[in-house]
Amino acid sequence: MNAEIIAVGSELLLGQIVNTNARFLSKQLADLGVNVFYHTVVGDNSDRLKSAIAIAQQRAELIIFTGGLGPTKDDLTKDTIAGQLGKKLVLDEEAMRSIEWYYEKTNRVMTENNRRQALVIEGSLILKNENGMAPGMFLTTADHKYMLLPGPPSEMEPMFLKYGQAAIAGVNGNQSRIESRVLRFFGIGEAALEAKIEDLIDQQSNPTIAPLAGDGEVTLRLTARSDANSNAEAMIDKMEAEIIARVGEFFYGYNETSLILELSKLLKSRDMTISAAESLTGGMFQQELTSVSGASNLFQAGIVCYSNEAKIELVNVRPEIIEKHGAVSKECAEELAVNISSIAKSDIGISFTGVAGPDSLEGHQAGTVFIGVHIKGQPVHVEHLRMSGSRTAIRSRSVKYGCQLIINRLTETRK
Amino acid sequence: MNAEIIAVGSELLLGQIVNTNARFLSKQLADLGVNVFYHTVVGDNSDRLKSAIAIAQQRAELIIFTGGLGPTKDDLTKDTIAGQLGKKLVLDEEAMRSIEWYYEKTNRVMTENNRRQALVIEGSLILKNENGMAPGMFLTTADHKYMLLPGPPSEMEPMFLKYGQAAIAGVNGNQSRIESRVLRFFGIGEAALEAKIEDLIDQQSNPTIAPLAGDGEVTLRLTARSDANSNAEAMIDKMEAEIIARVGEFFYGYNETSLILELSKLLKSRDMTISAAESLTGGMFQQELTSVSGASNLFQAGIVCYSNEAKIELVNVRPEIIEKHGAVSKECAEELAVNISSIAKSDIGISFTGVAGPDSLEGHQAGTVFIGVHIKGQPVHVEHLRMSGSRTAIRSRSVKYGCQLIINRLTETRK
Repeated sequence: MNAEIIAVGSELLLGQIVNTNARFLSKQLADLGVNVFYHTVVGDNSDRLKSAIAIAQQRAELIIFTGGLGPTKDDLTKDTIAGQLGKKLVLDEEAMRSIEWYYEKTNRVMTENNRRQALVIEGSLILKNENGMAPGMFLTTADHKYMLLPGPPSEMEPMFLKYGQAAIAGVNGNQSRIESRVLRFFGIGEAALEAKIEDLIDQQSNPTIAPLAGDGEVTLRLTARSDANSNAEAMIDKMEAEIIARVGEFFYGYNETSLILELSKLLKSRDMTISAAESLTGGMFQQELTSVSGASNLFQAGIVCYSNEAKIELVNVRPEIIEKHGAVSKECAEELAVNISSIAKSDIGISFTGVAGPDSLEGHQAGTVFIGVHIKGQPVHVEHLRMSGSRTAIRSRSVKYGCQLIINRLTETRK
Repeated sequence: MNAEIIAVGSELLLGQIVNTNARFLSKQLADLGVNVFYHTVVGDNSDRLKSAIAIAQQRAELIIFTGGLGPTKDDLTKDTIAGQLGKKLVLDEEAMRSIEWYYEKTNRVMTENNRRQALVIEGSLILKNENGMAPGMFLTTADHKYMLLPGPPSEMEPMFLKYGQAAIAGVNGNQSRIESRVLRFFGIGEAALEAKIEDLIDQQSNPTIAPLAGDGEVTLRLTARSDANSNAEAMIDKMEAEIIARVGEFFYGYNETSLILELSKLLKSRDMTISAAESLTGGMFQQELTSVSGASNLFQAGIVCYSNEAKIELVNVRPEIIEKHGAVSKECAEELAVNISSIAKSDIGISFTGVAGPDSLEGHQAGTVFIGVHIKGQPVHVEHLRMSGSRTAIRSRSVKYGCQLIINRLTETRK
């Protein structure tokens, strides 16, 4: 089965929001073994939507719509599709009750136009909206399957995972199946990584290897297609082993993970605590660490010491260190890492000091970064990095380097 | 002139990345007075790309491509378009020199396939790539304009701003012009805001009013079309005044701004400094504040006091406050805000304590948040909020509420 995803909404064409729904659904459909050949975005305009539907009918079996199911006059997805297919809109009692219940729960007053949201295309399977009001729909005709999903990701994603996925799997049968696995690397550029596995990429057929760079990381997506006689997972395992043998030192995790998540898991498994003294990163490391639920088991406190005075007064860096070496120095990073672990009584202390830019500081170019790591019972270690890129990129990559540094030092025997 | 944006890349159809390029270009084109009617995403497949080009030629005058200009075998945008238009690819000497220079600058070894990137479609205007290797192109035929841009946003965005924009403006002439302005609101829901301006929305024609909700904020995009006899800006001014008269208390800024940016500007203009003691937000407030270049003028230090012990030992909250009222309390927020401003010697101290969830804490539900604001010379103020949503949403909205709280208290006489 092949699919097209049509997002409906003028806000997308005006550049007010980005089409994250297409990304989410594409990934889900790949996991279901459905090939997505096109994404289309069209505005809240009935004629142009009709034309987009007609084109999609020529080139896709499954057409998934997101957006345009809301209560306002702009929201015309349902009406337009029903019109194209010669179907009527009918009131769905359960959706109506759910809308009423939603208003009660959130203590708001229901307006008349919200009733429109309970209208569904006749003959469709209703996909319940547990995070909003507009129900989704799944409709099968002789040649096509149509799925209508709400626009807000907070409604669309849980609806698809709970109801949409099963509806598609049900009609897609169980022929050939696609398995895919993403390997994540940090600390190596895309070109350098590709050069090391060039022969594997050149020979690729099944599994395929798709490299992608972004946010200072490189990922390789391995995708295998299996049938009754082959096992996609085993094929991916074999390819992964070949890749890891060559660039394993930069590998840090699978699929939808992140360095901060891998660090959190590792610290939890070792029952270790961590604290941070952050200058150029301004709290980014701690913010990311505490974005993971359950962070209180491994993190108690940290200090954002943006000014030199703060480094001296709050993190007890000796003034002569800053006078002699500057705040952007190995020595300052050392003292920050050691002192913060003692102030916060943690097993690990990490420090970030450097120049986020755009201006230089203390004669150092933007991108000069010192990361200190102090692990209880080990000598303090400082990494001196020279990065390029925007202020945001330098800060964010510093945090990633910090995570990788700790992971590597805690698991050194592994490598 | 109307446009279609075609993104080329299988990684988009596999859901590995999100199409932020379409968003960026759409916004830029709106500002140039170009209507974008469709976005299309197509994979690295020559036949499907050909078909997408043929469809776009039917419905758009300007067709902008992103992606597929790189050095690898996957990158087939140039070849396919040249083939469709019956044009040849020729080596661009300047692009070749720039690619060689890029390799020298980054100290890397140039591989043979990188030469492919210097091939351009004959007769096109070359758009210089100052952040990567693949040059962009702008090509005019009898019926259409084609622009080819690289896929990585870090290359595409500066290229478009410096060279692409001017190329389009040059051919677009100066007929009717679209002006658009986004008004940003925080602290009011989309439905409530719409209810207050329902009559304006119902009567809208020129300017149009497009509401959009996201990240706890609501925006209204006012778009006016002017010709020789009318002034779009004046039309928007008039509509804005009507809207502000009704919901001005929730308004905080125009277009691409944010609450943290507005707060930073306000503090700079008042020459005031700020510090923060963050519990549930884990450093997010400080991280956002320091993401703005020049933050060192208004921010020196802050503490992430995630545990009760940290609140007591690092921010000097009296233990009896936490024993009696808990850490999630008005009293704790008060002490945190007052103490952090004295510890960091800042004019303003802000504190965040509460329950980010998903679990409840001290008998308080997730979403219970206390924000303390202490402005020098004023009594400390605490806001008690009850929010719903994910852990991320609660943390991020807490930071926004905090910014709005300070802005409102500093500008109270204005409202």
